[in-house]
Amino acid sequence: MAATGKPGSVGIVSTQHFTFAQPPHELRLESGEKLGPITLAYETYGRPNADRSNAILILHALSGDAHVAGYHSPDDKKPGWWDEAVGPGKMFDTDRYWVICSNVIGGCKGSTGPSSVNPRTGRPYGLSFPVITIADMVNAQRYLIDHLGIDKLLTVVGGSMGGMQALQWAVAYPERVRSCIPLAATARLSPQTIALNEVGRQAIYRDPHWNHGDYYDGPRPNAGLALARMIGHITYLSDKSMHRKFGRRLQNRERYGYDFSVEFEVESYLQYHGENFIKRFDANSYLYITKAMDYFDLANGTGNLVRAFAPAAGVKFLVVSFTSDWLYPSYQSREIVSALKANGADVTYCDVDSDYGHDAFLLEVNTLTQLISDFLARVCREEGLEICAEPASV
Amino acid sequence: MAATGKPGSVGIVSTQHFTFAQPPHELRLESGEKLGPITLAYETYGRPNADRSNAILILHALSGDAHVAGYHSPDDKKPGWWDEAVGPGKMFDTDRYWVICSNVIGGCKGSTGPSSVNPRTGRPYGLSFPVITIADMVNAQRYLIDHLGIDKLLTVVGGSMGGMQALQWAVAYPERVRSCIPLAATARLSPQTIALNEVGRQAIYRDPHWNHGDYYDGPRPNAGLALARMIGHITYLSDKSMHRKFGRRLQNRERYGYDFSVEFEVESYLQYHGENFIKRFDANSYLYITKAMDYFDLANGTGNLVRAFAPAAGVKFLVVSFTSDWLYPSYQSREIVSALKANGADVTYCDVDSDYGHDAFLLEVNTLTQLISDFLARVCREEGLEICAEPASV
Repeated sequence: MAATGKPGSVGIVSTQHFTFAQPPHELRLESGEKLGPITLAYETYGRPNADRSNAILILHALSGDAHVAGYHSPDDKKPGWWDEAVGPGKMFDTDRYWVICSNVIGGCKGSTGPSSVNPRTGRPYGLSFPVITIADMVNAQRYLIDHLGIDKLLTVVGGSMGGMQALQWAVAYPERVRSCIPLAATARLSPQTIALNEVGRQAIYRDPHWNHGDYYDGPRPNAGLALARMIGHITYLSDKSMHRKFGRRLQNRERYGYDFSVEFEVESYLQYHGENFIKRFDANSYLYITKAMDYFDLANGTGNLVRAFAPAAGVKFLVVSFTSDWLYPSYQSREIVSALKANGADVTYCDVDSDYGHDAFLLEVNTLTQLISDFLARVCREEGLEICAEPASV
Repeated sequence: MAATGKPGSVGIVSTQHFTFAQPPHELRLESGEKLGPITLAYETYGRPNADRSNAILILHALSGDAHVAGYHSPDDKKPGWWDEAVGPGKMFDTDRYWVICSNVIGGCKGSTGPSSVNPRTGRPYGLSFPVITIADMVNAQRYLIDHLGIDKLLTVVGGSMGGMQALQWAVAYPERVRSCIPLAATARLSPQTIALNEVGRQAIYRDPHWNHGDYYDGPRPNAGLALARMIGHITYLSDKSMHRKFGRRLQNRERYGYDFSVEFEVESYLQYHGENFIKRFDANSYLYITKAMDYFDLANGTGNLVRAFAPAAGVKFLVVSFTSDWLYPSYQSREIVSALKANGADVTYCDVDSDYGHDAFLLEVNTLTQLISDFLARVCREEGLEICAEPASV
């Protein structure tokens, strides 16, 4: 069946680009540095209603991009990264909602990042690209939301780093979001996750081809980037899911080889994902984005999450964690919930029983579809929005 | 105070060496390869009693060595790696017991390993060293125990990979051990731990100085080995202990630097331990030893641990796990306990409540001292051994 004809698919979509912050009106970053011009890659699915009150902003994780759903061409083998979630009748029902996904600054998927050409020099930024934060990513997206003519987003939603951006949206721009859905997220990165990010970065730094970030004219630090990705993949699974997925099974052999080749299925899986990643991701972007995550702390080092969430007291929250997620464990979501409740916020919390580990936020589609559809329907009802009563296309 | 004068210290000790398996009587390895001559580095503390029935064999973890306790010289700044556990009045009371620790084959601490000179070529083995297993390590130690004139060890004890060796001893040589104390161990490596070992190995393979293991005449793969160690250190701690030890504190700075230098205390800790490790460990040994761990599966791929432990039914066991250990989680010790119980073995199990993660087996000294002293006293009593009634030195 052609990609376009798949039931529930949004069909053929294309990535769009929005450029802003032209000098001398650069975006002022948290670091104090300025960045401009800035291009954001984004995609939209479904249609806006008259007052654009049916707009949903999906925020992606570390290695994601703007292409959430559908296909870029009829020959595309794979749809967007969360195709199960976006389409007619799906979790984010494109018959009702206007769904937008924006790539982050610092990335390498069409938005301005370290691999972009610096217009001042005519060469890729490399490490001269300023260090960015989750707040900077969100501030840039706010320009896109202005550009799209959206006063108030129905919801901001994302998993992992996408959830951090969703929380940042709710805290920084509470007047621009009716609700917020952080999945498998945290209000501040734990030292364990900082440590895991740091060894990923060290893998890149230690690749001689990295050359202090100046590699765009020569061989790339593929060995380091693949290694960083392998480390990441271990943290996205759970002990239990790895038992089920791989066990101690050997790859294409009956018995131990007593050598250092790839022997176990789990080793082969890591190799595959490592080698695949270097085809689609930039090592410097990996550095910048993991650094942005490490800096993420809504409490700004005070430890006071109650005060941090005070501005978001009027936003409705659906917080979701997953029992086997050890990268952003459930207690970190419960910290968010407690702080929100202390502010009197309207917050629904679900700790989904799942063996999938951190990846559960992408894989537990049925559970999330039910949770999120119901939540969005309630938000629409309570906010007096007509859009959800019947499909926008009717 | 001089090292020798510290209360409870075994004082000045020295490493000894035992060489065996001289050609043509090489040790036959599990792989079918032969290895010889083999040297084992070992240390002993306390004194043997008349029938040498008070001998305890301590088995070390991945990066350990034969130097468990005491000092090598009066100027030594640090004692052996488990000094808190071995000495007069300690967990392994050298007034009563004769304590032996043997380095493993494949290592780089005085025993035959990939950095040893191959007598056939006059050059270091490098990757021509045969791949070894936990069973091979134990088979080599059995020669040492023969050499020391010990019929039956009072106990074999170790944490992590040391616990795997202890279990292997109990299963392979049940007639040579009265009891067995695996701490924070497993009967078979999980796919998650294989994956973590594999990324450590990949860090070494991808270091250009590794040169397929042939680096002893030139620069060493320090960058890769340090990176492997950094990954390892994350797995030795727990999320909770990292919160307590580091939190999100910055290292020698007040605020974010917005650059890629080491900023968080946890990053500094990893760097320090990575750089320290390269001074004392050989990258090829890291490959060989982690590979031996990956291969470790007492059930030989059958999943049948009950049958695997059948030979050890007459050995008394004290199995200890630690609640926050996610590298060898408590359920893996409970699998051992269940399989032993199904064989009618005498088994005591304790899941120690600790936040220290995998490192707890080295750090929970007070709890372990109580558990292990009581267990050893009971074993002596039940086995009709006089040695424990009063100090051997009286």
